[in-house]
Amino acid sequence: MPTFEPQTPDYVARVRASFDAQPLMRTLGAMLTTVEPGVVHIELPFSAALTQQHGYVHAGAITSIVDSACGYAAFSLMPAGAEVLTVEFKVNLLNPARGERFVAVGRVIKPGRTLTVCQGEVTALAGKERRTVALMQATMMQVGASNRA
Amino acid sequence: MPTFEPQTPDYVARVRASFDAQPLMRTLGAMLTTVEPGVVHIELPFSAALTQQHGYVHAGAITSIVDSACGYAAFSLMPAGAEVLTVEFKVNLLNPARGERFVAVGRVIKPGRTLTVCQGEVTALAGKERRTVALMQATMMQVGASNRA
Amino acid sequence: MPTFEPQTPDYVARVRASFDAQPLMRTLGAMLTTVEPGVVHIELPFSAALTQQHGYVHAGAITSIVDSACGYAAFSLMPAGAEVLTVEFKVNLLNPARGERFVAVGRVIKPGRTLTVCQGEVTALAGKERRTVALMQATMMQVGASNRA
Amino acid sequence: MPTFEPQTPDYVARVRASFDAQPLMRTLGAMLTTVEPGVVHIELPFSAALTQQHGYVHAGAITSIVDSACGYAAFSLMPAGAEVLTVEFKVNLLNPARGERFVAVGRVIKPGRTLTVCQGEVTALAGKERRTVALMQATMMQVGASNRA
Repeated sequence: MPTFEPQTPDYVARVRASFDAQPLMRTLGAMLTTVEPGVVHIELPFSAALTQQHGYVHAGAITSIVDSACGYAAFSLMPAGAEVLTVEFKVNLLNPARGERFVAVGRVIKPGRTLTVCQGEVTALAGKERRTVALMQATMMQVGASNRA
Repeated sequence: MPTFEPQTPDYVARVRASFDAQPLMRTLGAMLTTVEPGVVHIELPFSAALTQQHGYVHAGAITSIVDSACGYAAFSLMPAGAEVLTVEFKVNLLNPARGERFVAVGRVIKPGRTLTVCQGEVTALAGKERRTVALMQATMMQVGASNRA
Repeated sequence: MPTFEPQTPDYVARVRASFDAQPLMRTLGAMLTTVEPGVVHIELPFSAALTQQHGYVHAGAITSIVDSACGYAAFSLMPAGAEVLTVEFKVNLLNPARGERFVAVGRVIKPGRTLTVCQGEVTALAGKERRTVALMQATMMQVGASNRA
Repeated sequence: MPTFEPQTPDYVARVRASFDAQPLMRTLGAMLTTVEPGVVHIELPFSAALTQQHGYVHAGAITSIVDSACGYAAFSLMPAGAEVLTVEFKVNLLNPARGERFVAVGRVIKPGRTLTVCQGEVTALAGKERRTVALMQATMMQVGASNRA
């Protein structure tokens, strides 16, 4: 795994402040659990309110947490004053999202001045079992600071 | 646009019953507004509970409605006893999801016995303005009935 | 379909000159057949040299022409001095690439100062039959001119 | 990285025979260099015949080798009598494809009776430098044997 240097000493605080300003994360019940340079974990406890017709968590809720995890992984490496936007993502759903909780991990693969490419993964946890439920490949964009969209 | 023949006379009722069994759609406030053979519309009124850090609707909520629209577009053409699963999707976010309401349209491009390919689009409506906010290209899978995953 | 205004009067010549400077297109035998503002067609005659193990044209050759068609569709709307790069694309393969020739159409859906989103489609032609073989959703980037990557 | 058991003792021979039956790989000059259960490497020497307008290898040629690498990674785990088809893929281009040779690695992330999800990566080698040029996330399908498309 590549490792990266943050451009600001307060990158953890900046990520936390932005995450706390995402009402959808509260609506879903998601929590920000890890912030490292270029790596962010978001955890989502199972809730029946988030399910689809078979009782599993809906792909849209799973995508929401891994999109935010990838976006904040990118944001953790951006300069002061920058904002992050999702340009696009692709998600493969590998297994039904069945479990007690779901951990989305977003990782920067290649940071850039304008575009940052990330990979994300969501794991379902049920007792001692762990199962990958989704894989994401995403492009994030830096706006503000030195660049403009 | 290609047009398709449903395989069951009660395809509208089957889609509605399955949509009503998706608690996430209720949690988001989404409504099923159109069901035609291979075409489904889902509408989402703006709610501050669904936003991200800039006050726009989060890409995850937008993805949730267009994933369901594409999935049900595919499901509308499937035989009795079949279930639909999302295999994968790719979403481009074209404009900030700002508006009074959002209409996701899912369309079947190529139905298949196992896999169905769909395109989706989400439009933001604000007064008389309409703006495309997201494009989806997705693969759906038929399970149950004659096939097994 | 949205229509667009080119930013330069010589957009056709600029696209043709760049296409002619892509040796891979010659290696594959591909021809640029239509250039309109935001829309480009590239045609590829069948050749056994381009096939995969079942005798159909390889997905990589099909992707090559639709990537170039989308890239040049984006480029046709860019200012003088700009260059175009492919950021990413997603391709669904709908039918085996069997036919006498293949027409890739790339269309701009949303042009932007930095990023342009395109959709592409490849159709196989065999006698009077036409069959869609691939769908692309792609992000292109303008570099040079007023922006820098 | 997960590891997998092949279902047939002759999986290497089956992959090699199928690769040798892909004329496009010969046309591009690509070679199959590694076949392990669920992992395949394909190498492509630089050739001016494969370039785009800036002198780098065209994204279509890069996609061709990583699509074949992912497809054969999936195929290496399939039963006797099966064939593999690419359902879809998504490619991010991270750096210009500049180098003396390019190594595409395809890896199975989740094998399945019908669908297999893979990740791929293409690295450019120039002297002692190595640089990732492309990332793929792909869905492959087993046809023939116990399943039918």
